[in-house]
Amino acid sequence: MAYAIPPIAPPVRTLLGPGPSNVHPRVLQAMASPIVGHLDPYYLKMMDEIQVMLRETFRTKNRATFAVSGTGSAGQEATIANLVEPGDAIVIGVNGVFGERLAEMARRAGGDVTRLERPWGTVFSPEDLKTALAKVRPRVVAIVMAETSTGAMQPIEDIARLVHDAGALLLVDAVTALGGIPVEVDQWGIDAIYSGTQKCLSCPPGLAPVSFNDRAVAAITARKQPPHSWYLDVSMLTSYWGEQRAYHHTAPINMTYALHEALRLILEEGLDACFLRHRRHHEALAAGLAAIGIEFVPEESSRLPQLNAVRIPPNVDDLTIRRSLLERFGIEIGGGLGPFKGKVWRIGLMGHGARQESVLCLLAALETLLFEQKAISEVGAGVAAATSQYQRA
Amino acid sequence: MAYAIPPIAPPVRTLLGPGPSNVHPRVLQAMASPIVGHLDPYYLKMMDEIQVMLRETFRTKNRATFAVSGTGSAGQEATIANLVEPGDAIVIGVNGVFGERLAEMARRAGGDVTRLERPWGTVFSPEDLKTALAKVRPRVVAIVMAETSTGAMQPIEDIARLVHDAGALLLVDAVTALGGIPVEVDQWGIDAIYSGTQKCLSCPPGLAPVSFNDRAVAAITARKQPPHSWYLDVSMLTSYWGEQRAYHHTAPINMTYALHEALRLILEEGLDACFLRHRRHHEALAAGLAAIGIEFVPEESSRLPQLNAVRIPPNVDDLTIRRSLLERFGIEIGGGLGPFKGKVWRIGLMGHGARQESVLCLLAALETLLFEQKAISEVGAGVAAATSQYQRA
Repeated sequence: MAYAIPPIAPPVRTLLGPGPSNVHPRVLQAMASPIVGHLDPYYLKMMDEIQVMLRETFRTKNRATFAVSGTGSAGQEATIANLVEPGDAIVIGVNGVFGERLAEMARRAGGDVTRLERPWGTVFSPEDLKTALAKVRPRVVAIVMAETSTGAMQPIEDIARLVHDAGALLLVDAVTALGGIPVEVDQWGIDAIYSGTQKCLSCPPGLAPVSFNDRAVAAITARKQPPHSWYLDVSMLTSYWGEQRAYHHTAPINMTYALHEALRLILEEGLDACFLRHRRHHEALAAGLAAIGIEFVPEESSRLPQLNAVRIPPNVDDLTIRRSLLERFGIEIGGGLGPFKGKVWRIGLMGHGARQESVLCLLAALETLLFEQKAISEVGAGVAAATSQYQRA
Repeated sequence: MAYAIPPIAPPVRTLLGPGPSNVHPRVLQAMASPIVGHLDPYYLKMMDEIQVMLRETFRTKNRATFAVSGTGSAGQEATIANLVEPGDAIVIGVNGVFGERLAEMARRAGGDVTRLERPWGTVFSPEDLKTALAKVRPRVVAIVMAETSTGAMQPIEDIARLVHDAGALLLVDAVTALGGIPVEVDQWGIDAIYSGTQKCLSCPPGLAPVSFNDRAVAAITARKQPPHSWYLDVSMLTSYWGEQRAYHHTAPINMTYALHEALRLILEEGLDACFLRHRRHHEALAAGLAAIGIEFVPEESSRLPQLNAVRIPPNVDDLTIRRSLLERFGIEIGGGLGPFKGKVWRIGLMGHGARQESVLCLLAALETLLFEQKAISEVGAGVAAATSQYQRA
């Protein structure tokens, strides 16, 4: 007998918000492959391959590189809550929602948190850190590389040097960064890093790639007491992903299939080619937005190509535009969070979404709606500017 | 250019272990549907439907019924770590791996844990609890309803009454129970419960259905300090799943599609019909195993139909048999954990795996291998006994 709730039939969307982004068809296909057991020799080999590919994507040789069985926030908590012990001095860079969340997680882990604040949309300079490092002498410094709430890109290399000179560990949020811009774990000396699958990896949400270098692993091993969380206990997770294969929990098998194919796609394209692609489409979008008078939030030097945070033009209603984009054009873009609510749009060009079709389609739709709202006097300038930018590139 | 690591091509397995179990084809298909945003009106409606169906499956009216974004262990930790505050007296029934894990999680949450122990394979009587309840006066009592490590089925109703009379909250592990045997949350008065998707729900691992009644929600709301985990903070998760839809984390969209279809399947069949199906195939398997001299670990009255823990016959090598089942017949069964290692097999007939084909195929394969090892003198008795049992039923 038919059940009262009908089967799902999700609308086909062009996802140009802050994530999830569109999933590559090959990834959806992989995910629907028949399930095997989590201790099946086939699955164990696949876990090894995932680790090889994650190391390549993070550009690291770290043995402790794997995927946490939860979304990006689970990776975030696994990373910070394992590195922070009760009473530890911790410095967190807070210039958006995700820095804020790091501070909250560190506090819950018992850390003595010093918040280093900068206005939303800006980034930290090495100078900003110096005083805090000298004064607080932290055990861990945590910073967001790609602030999804503001579209700001945080340079890491110089900060990493300062943090290490001060004898601290550097923890980096790369949720929106990984796959969209270079993330050089070994070269920059990042000690612990986490990401998510649903941004630039063209994969559904549900796993969180993480990596810990030997210093970070040693710090976790030397903890005086285990972390509060059993599910996110990194020592146990590294045993499960390591040679022992010590049973911890049942991994999300089909999500792992998806990640396997997503990583294959990005490495097949080549990381550098992938970063260039993200930049090329960002530049076309930026040219198009400029032509219709829409301005970016961050300065040009610190704009994330994969997440374009722009100011909503005066006298334009945020919700009306976003609702119409979704209902009439099937396009999702993101609204602003916190102080940016109603003032900022967040346009993601991530992974499989970083394509010419996305850029042109969004500009055409946006121009149509802004014209209807009398915010611009004619349509076509945005698409034309983007098209010329593509021809130049 | 082709990448060095080839695409996945998982072997087709008959999964008759302790989970994951085989995923229904309709569930795999749903999971591969195009992704939408986690705040898309379509997705929000789907979350509502999931809640309606989870309430029906848990047989509860609890508003706080939803899916945690992690595997069963994440649901376990979300449940225990939110109900336990530092210093709280907690009683945990430990008669297998999962009771042990509850005790460990409660300890990490700061609980003052009293372990109530029973030999593996046996269950607790209300009498067993009385002394502990009087002596410890616990805030929470936690118990496993279907011990996946021993195949034992724990009656809940009488225990629930005792626990409530003692003024405590009852927390129940229903990871392997849900969908396989009746789980009467409201009728029995279970205060908090968690499960997993990869057992009797015919869905891949990756989500953990949970439910909290008003008493449990009030206890969580009245906490003196938030739980250590931000990712598994039940107050925040209920706001995300509730009317406010307060953004917390990006839900695993495609896994949610899978759970939606899995719940539709079980409710379309009807819960009672589903329980009967699990019992019918268990009885056929039990008849077949008896015919070849294989004995169950738990007493007949406390055997889980969906997880058959049986003693490995003398002079039969555990690993040889399990490896041959997998390699020659594509069948996975589970080995024993802890004290049961090398001594016990765990045969799951869960969800989509609880079918006549699974039972007959496993018995035929097992008979073949035991005959080759000279542990039985002829083949056919097991399959014949199962077949007669099916005809009788």
